[in-house]
Amino acid sequence: MPRPLIALDWGTTRARAVLISEQGEVLERRSADQGIQSVPANGFPAAFEAIAGDLRRASPHAAIVLAGMVGSRNGWIEAHYVPCPASPDEIAAAGMKVMLADGTPATILPGLSCDEGAFDVMRGEETLIVGLGLDNGIACLPGTHSKWALIENGTITRFASFMTGEIYGLLRQHSILSRLAEEPTGKDAARGMAKGLAAASRPGGLLNTAFGARSEVLAGRLPGGAVGPYLSALLVGHEIAGARALLGQSDTVHLVADGALADSYEAALAAAGLATQVTTPEAAFVSGVRRLASGISV
Amino acid sequence: MPRPLIALDWGTTRARAVLISEQGEVLERRSADQGIQSVPANGFPAAFEAIAGDLRRASPHAAIVLAGMVGSRNGWIEAHYVPCPASPDEIAAAGMKVMLADGTPATILPGLSCDEGAFDVMRGEETLIVGLGLDNGIACLPGTHSKWALIENGTITRFASFMTGEIYGLLRQHSILSRLAEEPTGKDAARGMAKGLAAASRPGGLLNTAFGARSEVLAGRLPGGAVGPYLSALLVGHEIAGARALLGQSDTVHLVADGALADSYEAALAAAGLATQVTTPEAAFVSGVRRLASGISV
Repeated sequence: MPRPLIALDWGTTRARAVLISEQGEVLERRSADQGIQSVPANGFPAAFEAIAGDLRRASPHAAIVLAGMVGSRNGWIEAHYVPCPASPDEIAAAGMKVMLADGTPATILPGLSCDEGAFDVMRGEETLIVGLGLDNGIACLPGTHSKWALIENGTITRFASFMTGEIYGLLRQHSILSRLAEEPTGKDAARGMAKGLAAASRPGGLLNTAFGARSEVLAGRLPGGAVGPYLSALLVGHEIAGARALLGQSDTVHLVADGALADSYEAALAAAGLATQVTTPEAAFVSGVRRLASGISV
Repeated sequence: MPRPLIALDWGTTRARAVLISEQGEVLERRSADQGIQSVPANGFPAAFEAIAGDLRRASPHAAIVLAGMVGSRNGWIEAHYVPCPASPDEIAAAGMKVMLADGTPATILPGLSCDEGAFDVMRGEETLIVGLGLDNGIACLPGTHSKWALIENGTITRFASFMTGEIYGLLRQHSILSRLAEEPTGKDAARGMAKGLAAASRPGGLLNTAFGARSEVLAGRLPGGAVGPYLSALLVGHEIAGARALLGQSDTVHLVADGALADSYEAALAAAGLATQVTTPEAAFVSGVRRLASGISV
């Protein structure tokens, strides 16, 4: 019998809480700066109360499920990584119980690990991937550390992480290119993106083509406003090529993103000849946490 | 008739001066913090005097040649880039004359540009490449922005830059990996380097394998002391692969480096199946500036 659900995506720097009706509708949303790094070791019950206490009072019988870094070594309790291949039921079964301040149980979802020569981990993204409800397909979750996953027969069989967003930030803010970069106009952005996507397949590789932005600006061939879009497209192009090499080919990529990030990944995927199906992170989270909650024995 | 030579490698943050005898022996060396960024627009004659005035008094009849960023737009005078292919005589002929405080002429060497779809430039490195005295071969000058050049029939036909050293610094000091990295012991360094070189040819590419350092440390598979050597070897491995793709294959790479940098590039080149001939930056500079000075009409 479905119950309402209070679900938290509780990361390192932020926490997002939703109250979800039996029918899967989001009734309330909360967002707080209380990421796990700001919570003292025994402070999780109190932090939960501060973030989502009013949701509990609004729906006292809701089940409670927490995803993300809250299940890491520095979180509330460590929920160990489930090794891939991992089905939704296996992920749900590895959830860990904790007690809220009033003794109510809550479930902390585990992360996933993947060991394909190189070791890789995720925590939080598995819930969004489950939320896509794919039988077979490839999922892309762009971000600071983008995740790509292969789903086969409803099971997450493999995944890989890419440092795309973080390296973009380092180049844009701390590198020699940061001094050349200006705020892009629409025209500069389109030009930079086109040039960056083309550069992503040049034989010199990322270290050569990233530096290319500097030479091109100095030569007057690239406006300063195109530097950021160039770097972004270059990095995303490399991410896509790497993910395809690791996870295999697919005509469609299921993209979990919204706003400008979704737009730039859609454009880069289209340039690589791939169709995109976009799901917002909230929609994927809500759907995923409902699916996993249905597999948790309370 | 050969003359003694006062030669400066005058870069953005530092200046190095040498007094070279008619026979090519380095008689004196000076090093100063007075890079061009610390010299006011009309302050170059005075800065030269501060850096190398005593060398002039030691050898009043020496010819004077300046290489590096001193010939850039923000330097003493702009010596335009010579487009590749560029022979030593063409480089020498593009030198620009300036006057020291007492009216003595000095020559500022130009940089090189290369336009092979992507535009690229160098300034200062051309002198070291000329100094290798190669008829045919591939030169590698590692650094913050590594340069690779192809020499054919004594002419620099193509070159490419790689942001290797700068991206290493960003990852090592500002990324999520910086918190995991510890000072390497000898054993950690060897292990990290071997793992990084192996990772450089993994299909996921640089964005995936750089992140891999984090997962491997968290999984206890890589000691913190191996993170820096892993990243260094991973980046150098990508640089080598990119340079070979751009410049073609060669059994031997002429490496201009010394110390730990020379060691790590030699190891990475050996792992890629390449033999190395090492020349120190000073030896290459001295030889190159002598060769170019011989082509300058005074």
